[in-house]
Amino acid sequence: VKTLEFRDGALLLLDQTRLPLSAVIVECRDHHQVCEAIQSLRVRGAPAIGLAAAFGVVLAAQEAAGEDVGRGVYLDAAIEELRATRPTAVNLFWALDRMQALARAQAHLDDASFVAVLLAEAGEMLREDEESNRRMGAFGADLVPEGARILTHCNSGALAVGAYGTALGVIRAAHDQGKRVHVWVDETRPLLQGARLTTWELQQLSIPFTLITDSMAAHFMARGDVDLVMVGADRVVANGDAANKIGTYGVAVLAHAHDIPFYFVAPFSTVDLATPSGDRIVIEQRKSEEVTSFHGHRIAPEGTVVANPAFDVTPARLTTAIITDRGVARAPFGEHLANLAGPAGGDDSPNSVLAGTDRR
Amino acid sequence: VKTLEFRDGALLLLDQTRLPLSAVIVECRDHHQVCEAIQSLRVRGAPAIGLAAAFGVVLAAQEAAGEDVGRGVYLDAAIEELRATRPTAVNLFWALDRMQALARAQAHLDDASFVAVLLAEAGEMLREDEESNRRMGAFGADLVPEGARILTHCNSGALAVGAYGTALGVIRAAHDQGKRVHVWVDETRPLLQGARLTTWELQQLSIPFTLITDSMAAHFMARGDVDLVMVGADRVVANGDAANKIGTYGVAVLAHAHDIPFYFVAPFSTVDLATPSGDRIVIEQRKSEEVTSFHGHRIAPEGTVVANPAFDVTPARLTTAIITDRGVARAPFGEHLANLAGPAGGDDSPNSVLAGTDRR
Repeated sequence: VKTLEFRDGALLLLDQTRLPLSAVIVECRDHHQVCEAIQSLRVRGAPAIGLAAAFGVVLAAQEAAGEDVGRGVYLDAAIEELRATRPTAVNLFWALDRMQALARAQAHLDDASFVAVLLAEAGEMLREDEESNRRMGAFGADLVPEGARILTHCNSGALAVGAYGTALGVIRAAHDQGKRVHVWVDETRPLLQGARLTTWELQQLSIPFTLITDSMAAHFMARGDVDLVMVGADRVVANGDAANKIGTYGVAVLAHAHDIPFYFVAPFSTVDLATPSGDRIVIEQRKSEEVTSFHGHRIAPEGTVVANPAFDVTPARLTTAIITDRGVARAPFGEHLANLAGPAGGDDSPNSVLAGTDRR
Repeated sequence: VKTLEFRDGALLLLDQTRLPLSAVIVECRDHHQVCEAIQSLRVRGAPAIGLAAAFGVVLAAQEAAGEDVGRGVYLDAAIEELRATRPTAVNLFWALDRMQALARAQAHLDDASFVAVLLAEAGEMLREDEESNRRMGAFGADLVPEGARILTHCNSGALAVGAYGTALGVIRAAHDQGKRVHVWVDETRPLLQGARLTTWELQQLSIPFTLITDSMAAHFMARGDVDLVMVGADRVVANGDAANKIGTYGVAVLAHAHDIPFYFVAPFSTVDLATPSGDRIVIEQRKSEEVTSFHGHRIAPEGTVVANPAFDVTPARLTTAIITDRGVARAPFGEHLANLAGPAGGDDSPNSVLAGTDRR
């Protein structure tokens, strides 16, 4: 079962709102359906959102052929619609910018060639994504000790990306190297991505795990049962601050208080060097019903006021390292991230950054 | 609607598993039904469990009249059955010890008088409980600044006690004094006592609140939106360590990291001076289904391994003060709690303890 796949002119998505009880594929035949799928979290995870949006642009290019307004105008409007689906994960904007730049550069092509070029680009992004996940897996697995008990929050596995996984990809790589690992899975309220998705993926990978409520993480840290924390990210900014699923910041504070290493794992498409610090990241506020209801069953009394930020920001000072597909960044994060970005995106080899830093 | 009430030879309990959607009264006509109600959390909250158990002893005394084994033997067996229902909250043992001592002292009475004496004692405990809650409310309200935004975890209101409330009692007292307060309500997974019960009580008291998932507390602390934390306790031990609902320890670590005062509110019947430190407290482990299912709807895949400790322990070093019905204890907690206990349980007036300490 693939997270997302483009076939016969349609984007096929594994509907993540239905997991783990049903593995249902939803077919998006136009970009509006992709917008709906992103907003309703049928597809979620920063890299997967970016890829879905890229294929959404391909669908829009297919649609544009029959539209009066002109292909470029139609496509720009579709891209704006896709851009407005979710505000926090930067991969969405990265993917749309890349598709838009290509569309503008290839504006001279006939409709069929234009669609083909965009489809090839989105397919290339999907391939790059898997490759980058495998690279992060290799960099990160070195940081996972034999026997490690790893706590993770939300879902950062193959379901959050094109294939393989970010934080779960590192855990998987360590497992594949023959290291015995055990995963503490935060259920991740309100939408239970940990309980529903991470458990499901770990079962398929035969990696042992224990599911806990988010409120139990501190208890097991205090007992000495957690060796490290590894999570994905929705946006890493220039100073190393990072946005991720609500609850991540709390886990980072707890890890710090218990002297437990805390790692973000994210491809460079998640790194937003244009934003200087985390306080500038827009946090998506989602609807109250995600907190007050469960599968249509009301939890809280009518009239209950709810706050429901979907993300929080972890300041760089709480982070041990950020594992990217270009190498591992450590404090001072601003400098290391800029080095990894490089003037041409790769002046420093990943190892030169690793070499200079203390491997905790 | 009362948390619990004894009427016409039966213990009436407001079924807390059904709130907030339905206010259903369950009638316990024998002590087995009280055991079931405690184990299945129809009645919960340390003081309320103690009171329910005390009335359970009254029911057992009624039953004993018709038993062959002899009243004393029957009653002792019933008390052991009640004692085994839940291991962590100390009020249960405190209440049963008190009822058992009285039963032994009054063993010479005829059946009718014996039941009447036990019923009077349980009724007295219920009255004392409300009085003690009101006293804690008065002590604690002094620590609540005008405009305070107070975070609480689980439910420590009238539903957790006989009447009024412990931590919620303090909030209520501050509100009744005309202070504007706002409550951040942690939903309190897995059983959602915050989302279901605390919201329900705050609505009835017209105290403004916002419901959040447990994983959001850190985010709002970092934003400066939380002025203090106030929670109940299931057991406070000699050195000031305290057990409370799972998640409390995490909140305490977060409060400490954000320099936010953290208060326990508990009557002296929750204080267990016979246990030296928190690592000696037995933590109840509850069944997996509380985490993997919701209202019969499965959340996690079949075969998911779960950890489900119902409580955690907060070390005294994270606690600003413990508000008891005999006064406010602060560090050094061991000394202050012993002073409040007193040789005769009250040598020091509460104010003498308050006077010597810094009121944060």
